[in-house]
Amino acid sequence: MELFWDRGYDGTSMADLADATGMAKPGLYATFGDKEHIFQQALCRYDEVMARPMIEELLSSSAPLRASLRASLSGILHSIKGSGLPMGCFILNSTFECSNDEPAIKQHLVELNLQRRNAFRQRLLRGRDEGELPGTADIDALANYFAGQSAAIGVMARAGLPLDELEAMVDVALNVLPEAETPSAPR
Amino acid sequence: MELFWDRGYDGTSMADLADATGMAKPGLYATFGDKEHIFQQALCRYDEVMARPMIEELLSSSAPLRASLRASLSGILHSIKGSGLPMGCFILNSTFECSNDEPAIKQHLVELNLQRRNAFRQRLLRGRDEGELPGTADIDALANYFAGQSAAIGVMARAGLPLDELEAMVDVALNVLPEAETPSAPR
Repeated sequence: MELFWDRGYDGTSMADLADATGMAKPGLYATFGDKEHIFQQALCRYDEVMARPMIEELLSSSAPLRASLRASLSGILHSIKGSGLPMGCFILNSTFECSNDEPAIKQHLVELNLQRRNAFRQRLLRGRDEGELPGTADIDALANYFAGQSAAIGVMARAGLPLDELEAMVDVALNVLPEAETPSAPR
Repeated sequence: MELFWDRGYDGTSMADLADATGMAKPGLYATFGDKEHIFQQALCRYDEVMARPMIEELLSSSAPLRASLRASLSGILHSIKGSGLPMGCFILNSTFECSNDEPAIKQHLVELNLQRRNAFRQRLLRGRDEGELPGTADIDALANYFAGQSAAIGVMARAGLPLDELEAMVDVALNVLPEAETPSAPR
């Protein structure tokens, strides 16, 4: 997984995968399938160990809405910058890697991006139900917006911004949240 | 340029470039240099015909700040979606393409991303000077944030969102702008 994450689909050959796994190419094909198939498995693995735990944390958070969203964006930021892992989010990197022409991979990436969007949607809906957002808040637009912020953070991290400037970006991003009509009780 | 834009650095070989230009590989090397050099020229060309005109429009805009920023993000959105051009922004795609290990290319991409950030910064500073933002507004954080929004739009465009949902994302994104202490005269 880390090889694809680090070097992308096009930048990784079956020979690289054979080197990384210590397997001969025929054994690799027989055990894991072709490059497309191995890439799909790498995406599934990334989803399982990186993306889904972050989604579960967002959905199960008992913190107020704004703090939950901040924790989620901040988690994405810290996983992108300074974690010692390959640069960026594997899902984002792959989404922007242009020549991923295989329709099954494109479809998988669409699903992973929409899974993140749907998690934000679910958390925002709960916030609205709990009176933290006005009833008129456009939940779908907010969910799409928050799902996009990981890419906003990602591109500026790659542009070399230091951690404190990226954190200030997250603070700005949270300011889109509309005030509830009747302020909810402070917690 | 379009070949790199469409297929990325790793997805494009010198053989592809030879095919696209109708030149033999030795002639290609002699005229334009190696793949890294040709890629750098493609980035320069993209900057010249796509990025800089958008920056100049943002900087020269006499519309109010919010309308200028909306026009800029909307321009990015329409260049990403439905323009008939290769998908996305060449600068963004290349920034996320992981295995671009050549330091000179990485540096070039950092500069292009910061050039966009600096343009937003300049426009925001003018807005503050013209009373459209409070004196306390964190211009640097806002500039980094707006420079990141093209990636936010880009990733959600690739996740298949229709144009009207992407436009609603832009509307949400603009809501981070703080109100000026004394409202400026309506224009």
